[in-house]
This record gives sequence, C-alpha cells and structure tokens, in this order.
Amino acid sequence: MSWELDSRLANDSVLIADSNTFQLRLLNDHRYEWLILVPKVSEATELFELPSLYQQQLIQICNSASEKLLGQRHCDKVNAGYLGNVVAQFHFHIVGRRVDDPAWPGPVWGHSPREAAAAEIIQERCNYWRELRLV
Amino acid sequence: MSWELDSRLANDSVLIADSNTFQLRLLNDHRYEWLILVPKVSEATELFELPSLYQQQLIQICNSASEKLLGQRHCDKVNAGYLGNVVAQFHFHIVGRRVDDPAWPGPVWGHSPREAAAAEIIQERCNYWRELRLV
Repeated sequence: MSWELDSRLANDSVLIADSNTFQLRLLNDHRYEWLILVPKVSEATELFELPSLYQQQLIQICNSASEKLLGQRHCDKVNAGYLGNVVAQFHFHIVGRRVDDPAWPGPVWGHSPREAAAAEIIQERCNYWRELRLV
Repeated sequence: MSWELDSRLANDSVLIADSNTFQLRLLNDHRYEWLILVPKVSEATELFELPSLYQQQLIQICNSASEKLLGQRHCDKVNAGYLGNVVAQFHFHIVGRRVDDPAWPGPVWGHSPREAAAAEIIQERCNYWRELRLV
C-alpha cells in the first residue's frame, strides 16, 4: 500500500522537506517552533513498527534538530515524542520550548488550539529548516 | 560527578529495576501504566546529550515495553517521549494509554495531579516489569 499523509496532519502543518523515507513538517502555530517528523511507513502507529533504519534516522534527525533549536533558534528546552491518540498515523513531535511560551512549563500537547502563523513566519522557519537538509 | 536520581522523580515513582546504565521506574499513579526510564548520565537534559549507546538502548527498551503494554497489559496506545521542563534531569516517559483512561485522548502530561496507587497495584506492576529484565 502506498504511503499517504493523514489529512489532519496535512491541514495543521506545512511541508519543510520530503525524502524517500520521511516528511519533515512545520506545525502552523506562531507560538512554537514545532517540527513534525512523519516516516513514510504505511499503517505504522508505534515506534516499534518502524523498520530499524527509520528508528535510527528518526533519532538522528531529532538530535540534529534539537541542537539547532537550542542553538541558532534560541529555545530553552526541547520536548519530543509521539502520542497518536487522535491522529493514529505515526508522527514524531520535536518542539522547541521557551520559558516565556504560553504553555511553559506544561506540555504543548492539549494546551490550547493552534494559532496559525503569518505567512512570513512560516516562510522564514521553513527556509531555515529546509536549508539544513535534515531529511 | 556521580549520578544521582532527581528528588522529585524519586518521590513520584518507584524503582522497578536498576542497571549500570538505566533506572526503570513506575510512576505511582493507579490510573496509568506509566514507566519512566532514567539514564544514569550526569547533567544530561536532552536526548542528544546521552552517549549513542544509551540512545540505542533507550529505543530498544521503549520498543520492548511498548509491545508488552499493547499486548499482555492490554493498553490501546503508547505515548512516549521526554519533556523535562520541570524536572531537568533527562527522563523518558513510556505510557500505556487506554481509551477509557481519564486523560484520553489528550496527553497525560499536565492533565491532573498524580493519584497514588494502592500497594498491591504497585507490587503487581513492579513484579511484572521487573521479570522482563528490560534494563
């Protein structure tokens, strides 16, 4: 079965980069620098269902993105992981947190509805992450 | 510097198993089957700060625990990841979720205060996870 992005993920986020194995996406929310990494593996809902190589790549991408979030993007902490209670298609969150963001120190998940970002914010973030070629 | 468990993690959870590299702990909350994996690496707050071998072990333990949570422990979904906004010492959550648990389908993090479990529940869970020798 060919892989297809879940429609809710497609609606809530924009594509940063696309490879044979992953899509890296940006959540459309001006309040957080929030990356979503989606492995192109049909029917996967849990980490252990991904091929081992995908798991390794996922951790490498998470690590590289985390270093950038804490460095050049001036975040204070990274929150990362997967839930999938609402959108079952496996997707991994890598969220740059700041001590002055609205959800701090609580989790971003479940905090409040998404607040769409202005086009120039999306553009700047997507350009930044695209140039790093993480996927 | 020798590794020492954060006092809040010590207070909120009980030890399942202890190895040279990890502590596997059970959050003391009757509502969720909630494992906390703490690598014994001083000063680590982010995944990328752990030695590569620890990162690989962490994923392996998460995967093994997830299969058990969804199988023998009758959970419906696994939520896993790290935050560290309040307790900076790196610790990784592996949470078995059920569609009838009080936080479903939202995240467990930030949902409500911990509700301590009866001694026999803790004992049963700890015995179960200890016998698997995941760490």
